[in-house]
Amino acid sequence: MATLTVPVTVPSPAEDCEQLRKAFGGWGTNEALIISILAHRNASQRRLIRSTYSQIYGEELLKSLNDEISGDFERAVILWTRDPAERDAMLANEAVLRWKPGNPVLIEIACARTSSELFAVRQAYHTLFKRSLEEDVAAHTTGSFRKLLVPLVSSHRYEGPEVNMKLAKSEAKILHEKISDKAYDHEDVIRILSTRSKAQLIATLNQFNNEFGNAFNKNLKSDPKDEFLASLRAVVRCFCCPERYFAKVARVAIEGLGTDENALTRVIVTRTEVDMKLIKEAYLKRNSVPLDRAVAGDTSGDYENMLIALLGA
Amino acid sequence: MATLTVPVTVPSPAEDCEQLRKAFGGWGTNEALIISILAHRNASQRRLIRSTYSQIYGEELLKSLNDEISGDFERAVILWTRDPAERDAMLANEAVLRWKPGNPVLIEIACARTSSELFAVRQAYHTLFKRSLEEDVAAHTTGSFRKLLVPLVSSHRYEGPEVNMKLAKSEAKILHEKISDKAYDHEDVIRILSTRSKAQLIATLNQFNNEFGNAFNKNLKSDPKDEFLASLRAVVRCFCCPERYFAKVARVAIEGLGTDENALTRVIVTRTEVDMKLIKEAYLKRNSVPLDRAVAGDTSGDYENMLIALLGA
Repeated sequence: MATLTVPVTVPSPAEDCEQLRKAFGGWGTNEALIISILAHRNASQRRLIRSTYSQIYGEELLKSLNDEISGDFERAVILWTRDPAERDAMLANEAVLRWKPGNPVLIEIACARTSSELFAVRQAYHTLFKRSLEEDVAAHTTGSFRKLLVPLVSSHRYEGPEVNMKLAKSEAKILHEKISDKAYDHEDVIRILSTRSKAQLIATLNQFNNEFGNAFNKNLKSDPKDEFLASLRAVVRCFCCPERYFAKVARVAIEGLGTDENALTRVIVTRTEVDMKLIKEAYLKRNSVPLDRAVAGDTSGDYENMLIALLGA
Repeated sequence: MATLTVPVTVPSPAEDCEQLRKAFGGWGTNEALIISILAHRNASQRRLIRSTYSQIYGEELLKSLNDEISGDFERAVILWTRDPAERDAMLANEAVLRWKPGNPVLIEIACARTSSELFAVRQAYHTLFKRSLEEDVAAHTTGSFRKLLVPLVSSHRYEGPEVNMKLAKSEAKILHEKISDKAYDHEDVIRILSTRSKAQLIATLNQFNNEFGNAFNKNLKSDPKDEFLASLRAVVRCFCCPERYFAKVARVAIEGLGTDENALTRVIVTRTEVDMKLIKEAYLKRNSVPLDRAVAGDTSGDYENMLIALLGA
């Protein structure tokens, strides 16, 4: 379901590093060469390139990239080149330090990764920032958001397929009661969303739909401007339909006056190796335009070329 | 700091299994032989014995032990023989399913283990119970206890030595305010206790002592029967002085009418390979009686022999 394309015969890490070094040298940076290498290597290949580069040239590849390129292109290349866990830790740290209600990055990292991926992010966070992710989230967020986000980023959900239908029924009822009372941040709502396994949660939400005649998320639209309700909807969508969730994040980033490059970059670099094919299908279905074409129409230059390469063009 | 004694020349796992099989066979079980083997092997040696045993005899060692021995002796041998993470997952599950306020087992597992040990417990919990630890804790506890225990068992604390003294000062002040207002389960109290690194937390508690003239825990004794206050004190003691904390659990288990065998077994099997030497020193200092002698005076038979062997006699 990934859109990453890797050449049939991959050059050795040392050859890749030599080419990258060439791209950085001379009179101007050769951005096309950088893209032709890094945008076509998977996570473990990129990791090898990074370690080989620092062995050969005594400098971090990310540092060289940082010196040579800039702007949205730089951000896309550097985020992409990082290890997924490290990249998520960076994104989470940014989201926490510049915390504003409604920022969905922490929810994506907590709910649209596997349990072991989320744990790897928490380990990377220790290494990079000398603090824990939940510690920073708890210290920088407040109110209902804190109540929701701290358990979400701390969770280590069971990932088996087992479903307890009796539990699904009783918890669908609890959710319905609390939502009907507009107790959106009630501890039981948060407990159910932040601790149950994905399979159990989906069963509960299906049960909610069967029993009460409309989807849980439909009940969270009473105030379209309420950022907490939007966060709850994002949690549910990251579990139930991540491809449609990310297609929408991309659409919102592209639509309107000015592109939200950070959001667009985030969707593409974090999903290219995961489910970008599905996101592209969802995007096309919803918008009647291929995502590649929408991205090409809204971005330009090396940044455009980098994103389009990751989208598998 | 462990009291485990392992022979200089350790028999092969196959030899150990053969001896154990002998101990199980014949007219009666040879409990002394079981103790002489299992109570003198470390965690990785026991793991090898378990896997070798099931390969040779087509039966789990724990199942054979379960068939052959009983009572407190059985519980001690089986808990000891398990992997530490698996053992903690079992103890946590028991504590959760028979939840009563004031049960300190979850606090010990959350606060007197390293971050990676706690994470291993959470992984073992998935494997054994097909649910997550935090999911069960959230579903079976209520009120202030839930507010405290869910973040504690979900934490993955940073373990570096870095301390932010400004933060220690400001959080000591927050703790003092909340405790003075008797807001013991205030979200900031729980946030500080459940997310900060051990080094940072100890700095904050020292700062509390310096600034306000007495120790944080002394402020949590307003009602000696309040189980939530006892839980907060246990959190602090598991971080600051685990050896004195466990010495006290052992003392309370031994003292009074009837021994609390479950608590005594738990302290000994969970700490023998960790810090039992320090616990014995703390016990002697506080009670003027060696822990071994107190245990021998209060237990009997094979159970006594097993505990005494683990205590390094």
